[in-house]
Amino acid sequence: MKEKLQELRKRLAEIDAIDSTVQLLYWDQSTYMPPGGASARARQLATLSQISHEKFIDPKIGSLLDDLRPYEETLSYDSDDASLIRVTRRHYERSVKVPPSFAAEFANHSAQCHDTWQKARPANDFSLVESLLAKTVELSRRYSDFFPGYEHIADPLIDLRDESMTVAVLRPLFENLRQQLVPLVDAITSRKPADDVFLRKTFAEDKQIAFGKDIAKCFGYDFNRGRLDKTAHPFMIKFALDDVRITTRVREDFLGDAMFSIMHEAGHALYEQGFSPDLESTPLADGASTGVHESSSRLWENIVGRSQGFWTHFYPKLQEEFPDQLKSVSLDNFYAAINKVERSLIRTDADEVTYNLHVIIRFGLELELLEGTLSVKDLPEAWHESYKKNLGIVSSTDADGVLQDIHWYHGTVGGSFQCYTIGNIIGSQFFQAALKAHPEINSEIEEGRFDTLHRWLTENVYRHGRKFTADEIVRQATGSSLSIEPYIEYLNKKYSELYCL
Amino acid sequence: MKEKLQELRKRLAEIDAIDSTVQLLYWDQSTYMPPGGASARARQLATLSQISHEKFIDPKIGSLLDDLRPYEETLSYDSDDASLIRVTRRHYERSVKVPPSFAAEFANHSAQCHDTWQKARPANDFSLVESLLAKTVELSRRYSDFFPGYEHIADPLIDLRDESMTVAVLRPLFENLRQQLVPLVDAITSRKPADDVFLRKTFAEDKQIAFGKDIAKCFGYDFNRGRLDKTAHPFMIKFALDDVRITTRVREDFLGDAMFSIMHEAGHALYEQGFSPDLESTPLADGASTGVHESSSRLWENIVGRSQGFWTHFYPKLQEEFPDQLKSVSLDNFYAAINKVERSLIRTDADEVTYNLHVIIRFGLELELLEGTLSVKDLPEAWHESYKKNLGIVSSTDADGVLQDIHWYHGTVGGSFQCYTIGNIIGSQFFQAALKAHPEINSEIEEGRFDTLHRWLTENVYRHGRKFTADEIVRQATGSSLSIEPYIEYLNKKYSELYCL
Repeated sequence: MKEKLQELRKRLAEIDAIDSTVQLLYWDQSTYMPPGGASARARQLATLSQISHEKFIDPKIGSLLDDLRPYEETLSYDSDDASLIRVTRRHYERSVKVPPSFAAEFANHSAQCHDTWQKARPANDFSLVESLLAKTVELSRRYSDFFPGYEHIADPLIDLRDESMTVAVLRPLFENLRQQLVPLVDAITSRKPADDVFLRKTFAEDKQIAFGKDIAKCFGYDFNRGRLDKTAHPFMIKFALDDVRITTRVREDFLGDAMFSIMHEAGHALYEQGFSPDLESTPLADGASTGVHESSSRLWENIVGRSQGFWTHFYPKLQEEFPDQLKSVSLDNFYAAINKVERSLIRTDADEVTYNLHVIIRFGLELELLEGTLSVKDLPEAWHESYKKNLGIVSSTDADGVLQDIHWYHGTVGGSFQCYTIGNIIGSQFFQAALKAHPEINSEIEEGRFDTLHRWLTENVYRHGRKFTADEIVRQATGSSLSIEPYIEYLNKKYSELYCL
Repeated sequence: MKEKLQELRKRLAEIDAIDSTVQLLYWDQSTYMPPGGASARARQLATLSQISHEKFIDPKIGSLLDDLRPYEETLSYDSDDASLIRVTRRHYERSVKVPPSFAAEFANHSAQCHDTWQKARPANDFSLVESLLAKTVELSRRYSDFFPGYEHIADPLIDLRDESMTVAVLRPLFENLRQQLVPLVDAITSRKPADDVFLRKTFAEDKQIAFGKDIAKCFGYDFNRGRLDKTAHPFMIKFALDDVRITTRVREDFLGDAMFSIMHEAGHALYEQGFSPDLESTPLADGASTGVHESSSRLWENIVGRSQGFWTHFYPKLQEEFPDQLKSVSLDNFYAAINKVERSLIRTDADEVTYNLHVIIRFGLELELLEGTLSVKDLPEAWHESYKKNLGIVSSTDADGVLQDIHWYHGTVGGSFQCYTIGNIIGSQFFQAALKAHPEINSEIEEGRFDTLHRWLTENVYRHGRKFTADEIVRQATGSSLSIEPYIEYLNKKYSELYCL
C-alpha cells in the first residue's frame, strides 16, 4: 500500500512541477516578458496546461485512488495521507467528469469572448458581446450538467472555487448581510464625507514600494522566499512553498493604491508561505478555497492595515517618508481618509462597507441568468436596477456597468464573485477568534508587531493548506460555521466610530 | 505524407514549448528567483527536461522520420521541410543511442562533481575533485563509445556542440593558429603595455547599462522582442523567435565588463532574433553550432565593438556620459586600453589575441585525457607546463590553473572549449566576406550604422538557423571552408598598428 501511495505522490509531484512552471509562465507574462513574446507564450501555456491535465486524468491515477481506499479508511480524517487521497480524489472525479472536447470548446469560446469584451468595454457597447455572453451562460449551464444531483445549477460552478459552498448556504447569508449593509451605507452617507484629497498628491513610486515592502516584512512575509514586482494588476503567485511572489500596481497620484495592494497580496502570500512543508508538491499545498484565501488577504489589508491601531504605529513613519504631502494631516484625518465610504460604481475601487453590495449584486444576477429568469439581453438594465436598489446609484454607461469586470467574459457565469464576500466574512471570524485567544493582538498591532496574529493564523489556518474545506477550517478555527455576525459587528463598531453614528 | 509531416511538426512544436519553458526556468533562476526557490526549481527543471526527453525519444518520432524518408528525397536539400527532417533525424538518432540509465548516471555524477568543484576551487585543492574528474573522463569516453565508428574518441563529444567538426579538422587548424599566435603575443608583449588604468575608475551602474542598451539597439537588437537584465554571469536565452533575452554583469569599478558583455550577448541575440519566422517552434530555430553562435557574438563584440571605427562614433558619447572619468583620455588611448594584450592566467579575462591560446591549451589537454596519454593525476602539472609553453606564464595555484573553468566539472571532458576559437575564426571569415560584398560597412560603422552588416549576416547566416551545419554555412556564406587566414590577417593588421610591430 505504501508503494501505491508513493506512486500517487510521485505522479502528483510531477504534475505539481508542471503546474508551478505554468505559474512561472504567467508571472513572467505579467512582469518582464517583452511584447513580442505574447504569441509564443500562449502556445507554451496551452501546451503545458494540456500535458498537466492529461497526466492528472490518467486512469492510473483513478485506479491508484481506488486501490488506496482501504488504506485511507485506516487513517484519521485529518492525517496528511488521508487528506491527500481525499482531496485528490475530489479533484480527480471533478476533472474526469468534464469531457476534454467540452473543455476545449469552453476555452475557445472564452478566448473569443474575452477578446470581444476588450473592445466592447472601451466602446461602451454591450451589444458587441451580448450573444457571446449568452453562449457563456449556456456553456456554464452545460458545465453544471456534468454534475447531476446538484441542488442549484450554480452549485457546481461555485464548487470550482469555493468547494463546499452552495447557493442554499450563500443566498440567505448574503441576503442577511445585504439587509444590514444597506441601512449602514445609508447612515454613513448621510454624514459628512471624509476628506481624502491629500491621498491624491504626488507620491514617488520607489518610496511607496519601499514602504509597502517594509509593511509586508513586518506582517511576516519572507522576502527570502518571495519577491515583489510591478504589474498592471496586483496578484500573488506560488511556484513552491519557498517561492511565493507578490506584485503590485503603483499610482504616483494616489497613495492608497500600492500600499493596500501590497498588504492584500502579502495577506495571500502569508497563507501560502505558511503551508506545512509536508504538503509541498501535493494538491494540498493550496488554499482551502478562494474564499478562505480572500479571508487572509482581506484580514491583513482591511482589519489590520486599515485599523487605527496599525496607523498609530506606522503613520509617523509614513509622514517621515512623505513630509511635504502629509506633515499637516493628523492621524485621525488620515485614518478617516483611508476608510472613506461612498456610493460608487466600480467594484474594484469600492470601500470596505459598500464592496460587498457590489458582490451581492453580481451574485444575484448570476443566479438569475443561470436559473433562466433573466436573459442576457435584459442584463444591462437589470444591472442598473440592482445598483439603484442596493447602492442607490446608477451608471450612465454599460462600460461602468455590466461591462466593468472581466470575470463573466473570461470564464463561467456563476461561481467567481462570491469568494470576495466570503473572504470578508471569514476574515472577521478568524480575527475575532484570534483576538479571543490572544487579546494582546490589538496592542501588538499598535506597536507594529504581528507575530501573535501571524502565529495564530499559521497554526489554525495556514499550515493546513487544502486539507480541509472552508467550512471545516472555519469550524475548527473559530468553533462555529460561516457566520456574518463578527463581520457585521466589526463594521458597525468601526464605522459608527468613524462616522459618529 | 503531408499528414505525417504535420504530425511530426506538431510533436516537435510541443517539445519546443516544453524546452522553451525550461529556458524560462533557467532565466528566472538567474535573474529574479528568491533564494528559497532553489530546491523546487531543481525539481521543476528535472521534471520538464525529462518530459521533453521522453517525448523526443518516443519511437513514434522515429517511425515518422522513417516514413518521411521518401518524401524527403523528393525535396531539395536546402528546403525547410528537408532540413527539418534531416536535422531532426540527426538529433533523434543521437538521442536514442544514449541509454537513459547512462544519461541519469552522468547527470548524477555531474551534479556531485560540480558541487565538489565549488569547494575545491576556493580551497585551491585539486585532490578533492581528482577522482571525480577521473570518473568524468571515463564517462566521457563511455559516451563516445555509444557512437562506434568515430575517428577520434573526442569526435562524438565535439559533435554535441559543434556538429560536423572533428579532431582531424580542428587539431591541425588549432596547431597552425597556435604557431602564429605565440610569436604575435611575444612581439606585442615586448612593447610598452597599453595604459588602461582609467577604465578602472568608478562608473555608475545605471549609466553603463543605458549605454550598453543603446549600443545593442544600434546593432539591431530589438527590445520589443527581448530585454536586458542583470545576472552573475552574462548570457543570451531564447523563449521564442520574438522573445530573445540577454543579461549582463556590471562592475562599477571596471568600464569594460558590462559594455563588452552586452555587445557579446547582443551578438548572440541578433543571431536568434534573425532566424526565419518559418523555423519557429522547430529544432531548426537554433544556431548552426555553438561555434557559429560564438562567431556572431565575437564578431559584434570584438571585430565591431573593439574597432577604432566604432569608437570614432561612440567615444565622444561615452565621454559625455562619463566626463569626469574620460574627458582627459584621447580616443587613441581609449582604443588601445580596450585592446590591451597581456599574458594572463584566466581565460575569461583574456584579450582577443591570447584568448585562443587559453582555448588551445584546454583542447590539447582534453584530447590527451581522452586518448589516455595523460592521467587526471598529472593534469595540474600538465596544465602549468602548457601555460608556460604557450603563454609564457605559470600560475602558482590550481585555483587559477586547472580548477578555473566550470566546463570539465559540470559536463563532459571534451567538446566544450573548441567553440570559442571556432567562433573567432568563423567570425573573421564572415566579416571579411561581408566586407567584400559591401565595402561600405567600415565607413558605416564609423557613423554608428550597422544595418548593412546586420543585413548581410541575416541573409547569409542568421535566417538559416540550424538548417545547415557550420561547415555548410561557412562555405555558403564565404565561398570557402573553415580557414584561419582571415582571422590571422585581422589580428596581425589590428595589433601591428596598435603596438607598432
